[in-house]
Amino acid sequence: GAPPAANDPMWGYFTAIAGQDGEVDAEELQRCLTQSGFTGSYTPFSLETCRIMIAMLDRDFTGKMGFNEFKDLFQALNGWKQNFMMFDRDRSGTVEPHEMNQAVNAMGYRVSPQVLNTIVKRYSKGGRIFFDDYVACCVKLRALTDNFRRRDTMGQGAVTFQYDDFIMCTMAI
Amino acid sequence: GAPPAANDPMWGYFTAIAGQDGEVDAEELQRCLTQSGFTGSYTPFSLETCRIMIAMLDRDFTGKMGFNEFKDLFQALNGWKQNFMMFDRDRSGTVEPHEMNQAVNAMGYRVSPQVLNTIVKRYSKGGRIFFDDYVACCVKLRALTDNFRRRDTMGQGAVTFQYDDFIMCTMAI
Repeated sequence: GAPPAANDPMWGYFTAIAGQDGEVDAEELQRCLTQSGFTGSYTPFSLETCRIMIAMLDRDFTGKMGFNEFKDLFQALNGWKQNFMMFDRDRSGTVEPHEMNQAVNAMGYRVSPQVLNTIVKRYSKGGRIFFDDYVACCVKLRALTDNFRRRDTMGQGAVTFQYDDFIMCTMAI
Repeated sequence: GAPPAANDPMWGYFTAIAGQDGEVDAEELQRCLTQSGFTGSYTPFSLETCRIMIAMLDRDFTGKMGFNEFKDLFQALNGWKQNFMMFDRDRSGTVEPHEMNQAVNAMGYRVSPQVLNTIVKRYSKGGRIFFDDYVACCVKLRALTDNFRRRDTMGQGAVTFQYDDFIMCTMAI
């Protein structure tokens, strides 16, 4: 019989983007997100943001995405876009620092005001946060939190990292 | 008397870039590195790379650099540029994956082959590493290693991170 994915409406789309190797790399992802008009009137995603999108889901460290990761990514991106548009009521393409704080809290991350402050400074330009940087921030926060929680098996809120493992889970993001 | 910095040949340069607030932010740094011709025939640094350069030295988390950090950064950049040019003998503007491995080892970082492999995948385009990405990689590796070592006071090669502290030292980079 046909593979289960063949009945999925996104399968044809995925195979067209993935090309011969059957996986999507950062450059293919950038092209696909730009051509599909995902960002709409917002600035297209930078290659850098596309790389961290892949790193977020790439547990086997191949630098590429298979079909299931591709679907996970689109689901996450749609959620972040909806949140962003909810804050960007005047359609300026940017949100304000205090809205970034609200967004981080709404996503369920519990971080101190100092961390929120650092995040806002890191991802803003001229005091405002653009869609591309907003998504980059969401991707990193999710990937780093996932890496942390996967190691914090007892849910103690603390993890002991060996140097090599620390570099592994932070350099790829 | 005059402040000590006034006798430093880089002081006039720094104050011209820093403008009224007396500190250099990522956009000012990008402009300065482009206009000074630092990258030469290589592609200019992206704003993203300039942001992580500042984050590397920005221990007070203001998102800006003072004069001493500015000088530290130029010293580090010159070293990385020399290393890159040593590997890029044909002046293609890129180095190969195995040269990236040599560079990481030459800088004194001891990481596993798996980590090296991840780094190369993350920072290459079409199988080669461009100068901008090479520097971004050097900056991150140094900043993350510094953050780790500062906490590994006994030199045991292991650090226990609380979630908030983990996010603090990885989201800014």
